Amino acid sequence: MEDLKLHGSIFSPFTWRVIWALKLKGLNFEFIQEDMTNKSDLLLKYNPVYKKIPVLVHGGKPIVESSIILEYIEETWPQNPLLPVDPYEKAVARFWSKFADDKILTLYYGFFMKVGEEQEKAVQEGLEILRNLEEHGLGDKKFFGGETIGLADVGLGWIAYWLNVLEEIVGIKLLEESKFPRLFEWTNNFKEISIIKENLPDRDEMMAFLKSRYDGLRVFFSHVG
Amino acid sequence: MEDLKLHGSIFSPFTWRVIWALKLKGLNFEFIQEDMTNKSDLLLKYNPVYKKIPVLVHGGKPIVESSIILEYIEETWPQNPLLPVDPYEKAVARFWSKFADDKILTLYYGFFMKVGEEQEKAVQEGLEILRNLEEHGLGDKKFFGGETIGLADVGLGWIAYWLNVLEEIVGIKLLEESKFPRLFEWTNNFKEISIIKENLPDRDEMMAFLKSRYDGLRVFFSHVG
Repeated sequence: MEDLKLHGSIFSPFTWRVIWALKLKGLNFEFIQEDMTNKSDLLLKYNPVYKKIPVLVHGGKPIVESSIILEYIEETWPQNPLLPVDPYEKAVARFWSKFADDKILTLYYGFFMKVGEEQEKAVQEGLEILRNLEEHGLGDKKFFGGETIGLADVGLGWIAYWLNVLEEIVGIKLLEESKFPRLFEWTNNFKEISIIKENLPDRDEMMAFLKSRYDGLRVFFSHVG
Repeated sequence: MEDLKLHGSIFSPFTWRVIWALKLKGLNFEFIQEDMTNKSDLLLKYNPVYKKIPVLVHGGKPIVESSIILEYIEETWPQNPLLPVDPYEKAVARFWSKFADDKILTLYYGFFMKVGEEQEKAVQEGLEILRNLEEHGLGDKKFFGGETIGLADVGLGWIAYWLNVLEEIVGIKLLEESKFPRLFEWTNNFKEISIIKENLPDRDEMMAFLKSRYDGLRVFFSHVG
């Protein structure tokens, strides 16, 4: 058994991509739920620069930033590879994983945390992100890397699960099957993988958490608006 | 001779990190200067998602995003390694390279493109970035990866050369030797490497380019201010 601990939050998409990668590698680990409103001393010690989750601690050594943690996992435990061998294909997988990194918060906060005209603009940006994934990312492949789940899928997996919850709360649908048929099918392919299916956040719990944040925002905007 | 082309701009720090990596590997390549106010059809074809430079084209295949290009170069041409072998040390190097990626524009645009109170805030943010590099990044090492130049140094190399030009134009000094002695020494160590010394942008040309941008900004702010 590895000495492996993951400091994260079950409400963070960046944490879940690490959970999925560890599980796909067949690794056991201790999960430590961090309260981001009251960060633990250990978290501050492990990640003094960003003070953020997730942090993977392997044999006492901390690795931070989810994209870097994924590369570390891939290199340390080569079983069930998340990256192809060919350097060019590897670059393509990394591109979409980085795209996920760069765009998750735009997509997440944009249409969820803004109102009025700003929200409308954020919806257009969100649709553009999905369009890029549909047209340039997936093509005719089952997963972003081809026939099997890989780094980019794990990086983007948030979309397959979370987005739908946010859409329901806000009452705006971004990922419509008719507009994005391949991406919609990919969300199903992703969730059908048994390791993923067995390791998804509890939908009701997430709905309650996100809804309370959203309602808080509405109250905030009603005071400033 | 490799079929290797680099689309970039001599005024872009993201381009220079790729130039430095290619040169450190001893590779010959054709450089294609892109006009970012009038993007070429080839650039749009190679990078349809971001439409940005740099793009490395190897045997006709495009690789985009400077951090991903650096990983591709490292994997394809293993001579003069930019990354250590140990996965943990590799993660640390990638952390600082990503830190550079995430912070370059904050540092660059912040104190250069803002005025008044906003500029003062940006200066504080810039100092915080330098402090992180000094205290958590360099420690007592000559380079970010240890005794030899590596991925993080190439990623951060911009600071060793550009920052000083911006400081001169704006008239604000961020990287003072007395405040950041290790980082200051690192800028000298970086520029003393012969491959780097032979491959630096022309200071006068860069000064003229950045100064015209800065003066344009002042005119803009004098109209909106």
